Amino acid sequence: MNDRIPQEAQLAQSIALSREPLPASRKTHVAGSLHPELRVPMRAISLTNGETVTVYDASGPYTDPAAQIDVRRGLPAPRAAWVEARQDTEAYEGRRIQLIDDGLRDQEQQLKLRELSAGLQRTPRRAKAGHNVTQLHYARRGIITPEMEFVAIRENQRLDWMREYEADAEREARLRGKPMGAHIPAQITPEFVREEVARGRAIIPANINHPELEPMAIGRNFLVKVNANIGNSAVTSSIEEEVEKMVWATRWGADTVMDLSTGRNIHTTRDWIIRNSAVPIGTVPIYQALEKVGGVAEDLTWALFRDTLIEQAEQGVDYFTIHAGLRLPFVPLTVKRRTGIVSRGGSILAKWCIAHHQENFLYTHFEEICEIMKAYDVSFSLGDGLRPGSLADANDEAQFAELRTLGELTKIAWKHDVQTMIEGPGHVPMHLIQANMDEQLKHCDEAPFYTLGPLTTDIAPGYDHITSGIGAAMIGWSGCAMLCYVTPKEHLGLPDRDDVKAGLMAYKIAAHAADVAKGHPGARARDDALSKARFEFRWTDQFNLGLDPETAREFHDETLPKDSAKVA
Amino acid sequence: MNDRIPQEAQLAQSIALSREPLPASRKTHVAGSLHPELRVPMRAISLTNGETVTVYDASGPYTDPAAQIDVRRGLPAPRAAWVEARQDTEAYEGRRIQLIDDGLRDQEQQLKLRELSAGLQRTPRRAKAGHNVTQLHYARRGIITPEMEFVAIRENQRLDWMREYEADAEREARLRGKPMGAHIPAQITPEFVREEVARGRAIIPANINHPELEPMAIGRNFLVKVNANIGNSAVTSSIEEEVEKMVWATRWGADTVMDLSTGRNIHTTRDWIIRNSAVPIGTVPIYQALEKVGGVAEDLTWALFRDTLIEQAEQGVDYFTIHAGLRLPFVPLTVKRRTGIVSRGGSILAKWCIAHHQENFLYTHFEEICEIMKAYDVSFSLGDGLRPGSLADANDEAQFAELRTLGELTKIAWKHDVQTMIEGPGHVPMHLIQANMDEQLKHCDEAPFYTLGPLTTDIAPGYDHITSGIGAAMIGWSGCAMLCYVTPKEHLGLPDRDDVKAGLMAYKIAAHAADVAKGHPGARARDDALSKARFEFRWTDQFNLGLDPETAREFHDETLPKDSAKVA
Repeated sequence: MNDRIPQEAQLAQSIALSREPLPASRKTHVAGSLHPELRVPMRAISLTNGETVTVYDASGPYTDPAAQIDVRRGLPAPRAAWVEARQDTEAYEGRRIQLIDDGLRDQEQQLKLRELSAGLQRTPRRAKAGHNVTQLHYARRGIITPEMEFVAIRENQRLDWMREYEADAEREARLRGKPMGAHIPAQITPEFVREEVARGRAIIPANINHPELEPMAIGRNFLVKVNANIGNSAVTSSIEEEVEKMVWATRWGADTVMDLSTGRNIHTTRDWIIRNSAVPIGTVPIYQALEKVGGVAEDLTWALFRDTLIEQAEQGVDYFTIHAGLRLPFVPLTVKRRTGIVSRGGSILAKWCIAHHQENFLYTHFEEICEIMKAYDVSFSLGDGLRPGSLADANDEAQFAELRTLGELTKIAWKHDVQTMIEGPGHVPMHLIQANMDEQLKHCDEAPFYTLGPLTTDIAPGYDHITSGIGAAMIGWSGCAMLCYVTPKEHLGLPDRDDVKAGLMAYKIAAHAADVAKGHPGARARDDALSKARFEFRWTDQFNLGLDPETAREFHDETLPKDSAKVA
Repeated sequence: MNDRIPQEAQLAQSIALSREPLPASRKTHVAGSLHPELRVPMRAISLTNGETVTVYDASGPYTDPAAQIDVRRGLPAPRAAWVEARQDTEAYEGRRIQLIDDGLRDQEQQLKLRELSAGLQRTPRRAKAGHNVTQLHYARRGIITPEMEFVAIRENQRLDWMREYEADAEREARLRGKPMGAHIPAQITPEFVREEVARGRAIIPANINHPELEPMAIGRNFLVKVNANIGNSAVTSSIEEEVEKMVWATRWGADTVMDLSTGRNIHTTRDWIIRNSAVPIGTVPIYQALEKVGGVAEDLTWALFRDTLIEQAEQGVDYFTIHAGLRLPFVPLTVKRRTGIVSRGGSILAKWCIAHHQENFLYTHFEEICEIMKAYDVSFSLGDGLRPGSLADANDEAQFAELRTLGELTKIAWKHDVQTMIEGPGHVPMHLIQANMDEQLKHCDEAPFYTLGPLTTDIAPGYDHITSGIGAAMIGWSGCAMLCYVTPKEHLGLPDRDDVKAGLMAYKIAAHAADVAKGHPGARARDDALSKARFEFRWTDQFNLGLDPETAREFHDETLPKDSAKVA
């Protein structure tokens, strides 16, 4: 099934399914001041009382009926001009694609695949010799890039409509957030974004080879972000399904998407996903490297891994999960665990370390990896290969030893001006969540934290979007910058479209609840607008202001008394 | 539709649907020591490796294939003997049923309804003159009732099987709970239950006219409990649907059920629900009182309300929501709110207060209500009629003024030895949740807190089981004793069977996550048993140890690699 070569018609058709704007919504664009050419997208929701509520919009051009989209050619690339204008990059021929990149054995299959993605090929760019093209590098030199201004405008979600909802002084004082160490200004300025990036406290994942990107920031002083994992597997799904899943995920608010494909067609799937994605794309390069050695972890080499990094950097991947903190001496710490090593990347590298009885080659070659990252501005997502796979293993020495190492690596990455975030757990009972955040802040010096949940109990397979949504909301409030979603299929199977949406809903709730608790300026205005609509029985507005207007409308029926509770 | 007289055959058939035991589970019973006649039910889950995991079981006789159940006659009544043995109650003729109790206009309809529930009629009992039959009264006199021992055995869920999962000293120390002021002993003894009840820190809702009850406790030093609301409305649903919903709710773990029926057939619906329920049943008597005055709040009188209390107490309702804390002077405090008064009971009483410009008659007659409560051992659930209906209104003066009044009323109820818990919000952002718990503990002197969620954001209609599951888990950890579930239909419509289950799943997760965080002894053992099964690829055991084996099994498919992440 995975050998199947996708049909162009199918691809185009399936993606067309998710192109409708959300109800009563239209795409608006805000221009920049420093960079007037910016067109920062937002979603304007028209209410029946004449008000307009503007919200953050991760859905890309897909929800803009005016946008011409041809998935066979990829999205428009407004960022190309920004990159070009900096004059510190060069186009070059790039690595030649190999059969093994797609897990293929014969040239003919490859030709077919290549033909199908012919319109998606781009000449790669890299930093000119002696240059560093990361947003961190620019920020430290005092440069406010278009990416930074884009982020600043985007984070404000237009402040003007919110004023009505923030006018009551008593209410504002009563509901003032508890920032838990965050420092969020009333208005996000481009200079603030620059400072946060320069400090390493925020990243803007933005590979120079991903010019289709609408830049976004991940950092504790910004809106809490959500990542959705997609990706085909050796067993099921296809390129078109994954492209559609990416579009679908961003429609429901995914701020970044990780392509965790395994099996065949990995390279080509990524071509399709990146060229058609307006959100940053992350990958775990060790997955593809493992495919290239036929799934035998012991056969992995630095040379092959390095080549895979370059392959993916040239395609435009915005951040790489790199499990460089899983050191050989930490592996024995997992022996007494209830659930050993559950991270896929972690288990691959642990196998390699044990087989060779050598230090993890990602650790020993870390500075060389930094050299690649800064030539393309790929951000690190330092992976937690030893994250706990059960409550029983939470906050143990294996986990925290790795976290401390990730702190060391952060400093090395920063020495190279490479943008860096840190991955976190996993499975953690509520009372141990804060310690995760505290340790991360301490050892990683406020580099953005990016956690998977955490799941607060293990007893609800089939509902882990909820067990983990609880933990995600709590750690988001405590300062976690991005939450990797968990779908209802976690531990049980691969998520389909419905699962992707269910996971995103739980995580958009968690992220927003965290923003409100932290006191992100204006985060509560949407709650207020919806509550006002609810109190005034403006049902349509209540639906349309919600995270999922369609489901709300569908659930609404005539069983509620019309004159229900409403006094004073 | 609500006039429809249910068919016996239908009733019996629909209830038969939910009588299967959960997979690999069988009902076991533990006898008492002080009271050897006790048969405390538990669910024993058989694992494929020969282990047996025993868990708390709220599902009543329905999941016991050996139980003979005839819903037309009601469940067996083991508690009748315990009540009788105390010799402080008397059978009496009881109040005569009236047409208005079921909202009927002609005698013939009533005769049909009565005929249908003929097998469910019982002679009511009440305290003999000069006696007080509450569990609180016994507890204060040093008496360990069968109800108390039942609770003690039940809360331990058998400790023996847990030992394997608690054997690792390092793990136990690392995962030790953070009790936030709770004091939970390693083993719950009958004497501990008595002390907690005597202190007012726990209640055992157990009307002497509900002999079918399997007693349970609500208190911060016990397992966190979950309530499910059901009830027909003026618009939809029928008696048989509601009985089935009650059975269905307890199957999925509801520890108590509130019958919030409005419209017609209220009295008869309650006959069916109570006589067939092994969990405590709560009601909001003002709902029925309002039906009796044709929905005109202004026409409510103390005499009519008092008569309704007796009607319901004789039927066996275990706890009453009484909105006695909503005082006339508090109503103006809601004027500036975003969402006014959203509690149905609250809005009814506010209307009455405003119309008459008089103090709330529940407040002025509170001691008379206490007299009724102690004659039947109905527990107070002091209602929060001014709970916030939006984040904007959270923790405002209206809410907290009422809460302080509930504290005063608690002391009055305790003076009468009436068991009392306190209802709480509602809609509260995460950072304001702790203050709710703190204020409640302070003013209500550790009387059990019973909250609705709280919802941590207003922006997700259709997903409020999740927005509120987050808040419920957090407040449960902080000491909230019972969590009233919220279903996905909240704000949109009345829950159907699927919604009831979805709400319960979210809330069983929240309650369990809270138990683990508080460090309830043994709570984590089930997580460990499931994680171990997961690590050992015992799929069947993983499903069966979960909260919803059916969904987990259904979600499982062959897409997960068999040799997935597992090292060390």
